Amino acid sequence: MRRRNLQLDAQGRLRHLLTIEGLKRQQIVDILDTAESFIGVGDQPVRKIPLLRGKTVVNLFFEASTRTLTTFELAAKRLSADVLKININTSATVKGESLLDMLRNLEAMHCDMFVVRHGDSGAAHLIAQHVAPHISVVNAGDGRHAHPTQALLDMFTIRQQKGEFAPLTVAIVGDILHSRVARSQIHALTTLGVSELRVVAPRTLVPEAVSGLGVHVFHDLHEGLRDADVVIMLRLQKERMQGAMLPSEHEYFHTFGLTEDSLAVAKPDAIVMHPGPINRCVEISSEVADGPQSVILQQVSNGIAVRMAVMSMVLGRAPVDEEAR
Amino acid sequence: MRRRNLQLDAQGRLRHLLTIEGLKRQQIVDILDTAESFIGVGDQPVRKIPLLRGKTVVNLFFEASTRTLTTFELAAKRLSADVLKININTSATVKGESLLDMLRNLEAMHCDMFVVRHGDSGAAHLIAQHVAPHISVVNAGDGRHAHPTQALLDMFTIRQQKGEFAPLTVAIVGDILHSRVARSQIHALTTLGVSELRVVAPRTLVPEAVSGLGVHVFHDLHEGLRDADVVIMLRLQKERMQGAMLPSEHEYFHTFGLTEDSLAVAKPDAIVMHPGPINRCVEISSEVADGPQSVILQQVSNGIAVRMAVMSMVLGRAPVDEEAR
Amino acid sequence: MRRRNLQLDAQGRLRHLLTIEGLKRQQIVDILDTAESFIGVGDQPVRKIPLLRGKTVVNLFFEASTRTLTTFELAAKRLSADVLKININTSATVKGESLLDMLRNLEAMHCDMFVVRHGDSGAAHLIAQHVAPHISVVNAGDGRHAHPTQALLDMFTIRQQKGEFAPLTVAIVGDILHSRVARSQIHALTTLGVSELRVVAPRTLVPEAVSGLGVHVFHDLHEGLRDADVVIMLRLQKERMQGAMLPSEHEYFHTFGLTEDSLAVAKPDAIVMHPGPINRCVEISSEVADGPQSVILQQVSNGIAVRMAVMSMVLGRAPVDEEAR
Repeated sequence: MRRRNLQLDAQGRLRHLLTIEGLKRQQIVDILDTAESFIGVGDQPVRKIPLLRGKTVVNLFFEASTRTLTTFELAAKRLSADVLKININTSATVKGESLLDMLRNLEAMHCDMFVVRHGDSGAAHLIAQHVAPHISVVNAGDGRHAHPTQALLDMFTIRQQKGEFAPLTVAIVGDILHSRVARSQIHALTTLGVSELRVVAPRTLVPEAVSGLGVHVFHDLHEGLRDADVVIMLRLQKERMQGAMLPSEHEYFHTFGLTEDSLAVAKPDAIVMHPGPINRCVEISSEVADGPQSVILQQVSNGIAVRMAVMSMVLGRAPVDEEAR
Repeated sequence: MRRRNLQLDAQGRLRHLLTIEGLKRQQIVDILDTAESFIGVGDQPVRKIPLLRGKTVVNLFFEASTRTLTTFELAAKRLSADVLKININTSATVKGESLLDMLRNLEAMHCDMFVVRHGDSGAAHLIAQHVAPHISVVNAGDGRHAHPTQALLDMFTIRQQKGEFAPLTVAIVGDILHSRVARSQIHALTTLGVSELRVVAPRTLVPEAVSGLGVHVFHDLHEGLRDADVVIMLRLQKERMQGAMLPSEHEYFHTFGLTEDSLAVAKPDAIVMHPGPINRCVEISSEVADGPQSVILQQVSNGIAVRMAVMSMVLGRAPVDEEAR
Repeated sequence: MRRRNLQLDAQGRLRHLLTIEGLKRQQIVDILDTAESFIGVGDQPVRKIPLLRGKTVVNLFFEASTRTLTTFELAAKRLSADVLKININTSATVKGESLLDMLRNLEAMHCDMFVVRHGDSGAAHLIAQHVAPHISVVNAGDGRHAHPTQALLDMFTIRQQKGEFAPLTVAIVGDILHSRVARSQIHALTTLGVSELRVVAPRTLVPEAVSGLGVHVFHDLHEGLRDADVVIMLRLQKERMQGAMLPSEHEYFHTFGLTEDSLAVAKPDAIVMHPGPINRCVEISSEVADGPQSVILQQVSNGIAVRMAVMSMVLGRAPVDEEAR
């Protein structure tokens, strides 16, 4: 209970973004609406607005990342914030300074936001529990737990392509077990109220708890994709899997990889999504990834706008907020 | 003689900041006063002033550092300067380019300031001796020699907490021998004229020359702390110590670590300082580090303002300077 | 044919800068003239113009570099662009993402320019063939093929020092075989029409094709330098040489190193150039490198202005362009 509400202030406004779980439908819609207002910024000749001028955003990435790190950096710069990238490995942490001491120091330097990626589930929550009142924490992925900005940009993309959530059948395909992305997507799609939500995966890659979330589980790709409006492929997290949960990449592609053939059983106007980076010929064929139904690159574009929205909202300076005052 | 004056221009104004040694009382006070004018910037919604807009500050860190590097980067960005971080290890130096050639090149690129951290004592002086007339050098720590911006932010914090230096008894505790911080603090405190200046350390960690600086040496923690107004704990520089100068960390903490017990012999309103990062349960207990007498995080905050002051003064653009013209 | 024209748009204007080869004389002169207009920026108190404000420049360096990377970063910042440095090694590439997928993603993030350095000849061309219409590619050195901005800053420096190209005798000395710099210089000097162009190198370090380019080949340093107006020394690319093409560095310096003695056979007002970083006592003596005829550091300064010119021209926003509209 306390964990869920940690990200809201006393007035129920977003102070941190740690997880989709516990957000109300209207809160998610507010974020998507705010992101909508930032979409135009990427197309303007001068892609910069002064909303966070003089604010300092600190990227605390304990796990390697290019895409997510880059989109947060770009989003912050386009809001005119100063961006600090703390190199965790080669830094004072090695000298024996604990993580919390490092955070205390960054707070004392009048930083405003920590964007946290960490291999341990709950890391962003832990940090949010300990930061000073003027700091906002944004979870950029923690262990197998959550990746809320990814789920939000996915929702943004679905709404952009399909308009309404209510009539949709959405299939999430792949390594559900290890995927923080899937977990956040499931919470978002459930809250936004899609017609049917399916997960499609080998038995070894579905967590037992998933059926309690109102999700239909399929172990056959064709059955799972039949008449779907939205197909979300997950990245095969090779580096997270240990032991013999899967026979081979080739075998996986044969049974769960998305190809033109398997996509044909979905609705003719189904869209194909993937959080990236894609493993071609492992979870998706190049024909589909680069084909007309793919919205994978739109997801990337939308990711900037969604992160601009989250960053400006948690710092209480979103255009929507300003109006409301 | 030449070394001391290297940091002043013909009019006696600060051109480089290399060491506290040789600075006059009024020069130190001027820096503290200028820093005072920057303290407000950290509390403003827009933490940015255009004093160094269009200037290029180069961070040349030959030693790993997070905190000092980050504070210099933040200070420069809040003054609106462009900041270059030269990655010394993975860079052209390895290709055989000598340090001085690299500096020549950065000068030719119209950079304005080199912030230098180096493991060798005298490195910043050496660089200052060779730079072009339009370049300022700021020493961010050289070997065992000096760390002047740290000492200045410590003086700022003491003045902020205690008002006057004259009546104060100040105890510096720990590894005096290896500490560039202690060396710079001793020069600053002597110049600013405290009532009594003590160093407290095991015999093996006190340099012989220290008694010539007007400092009282104590080898017993309780004696050294008795009735002190200011207690400055040093970081135990484990990585700098070789051989068996110390029995063990546990033993060190037992005899020289600051705890609530040992702090009780100082004045009731004594403040506790530490340059960070702290080694909890080695030189200081968590109760004291996080307790009401600790001003450790204020030191970090003040570090931004003091570095903004130094950077703007050496480039001749401090607000105080502008007025004087 | 296609490769040469790839860098021009339908109106013959510069869209990418990939190679000097295929550029018309007037196009090179336009770049030099534009750079001329930026030279003043480096001397102004505020070294910043808003020409590329809101644009995002991505430095994609697959090879280690300090100087070139730094000058591109500085040039972009002085044009007020946002700069992203993608750390290629520690990034998603390792996770199996192909280069082209990474580029697609950066495009989707609304980046505007890729500055590419790569160990493979043709890498920048390959990238330029695949980028979206709104992206410009600047080659910052590809394998042994080309380093066009280096050649342009060299031409700028020659014109600055000598005024006209037509009457000049220019000698390029050193490892021609492995040098992308030499290749680009030869194309530039030939197009700009110098009186005589010489390459001076051991037989093992001259490519066979070079004589077809209208170049006179010398294997004796003194003969090659006789009455030269411009002497361009190349860096001995030790890391690129395998096997026993050269006896030893000492022997190389003895026969092909530029010293005061060997320079004496050139014209008395000959200028000495080097792309840096220099190997002192391998290809050049310190007396010459630091002597009155050396313009090596001017090359570095000019490099900022030339890169500002190229960056603003490929994005269609050079001051010269603006006027023409």
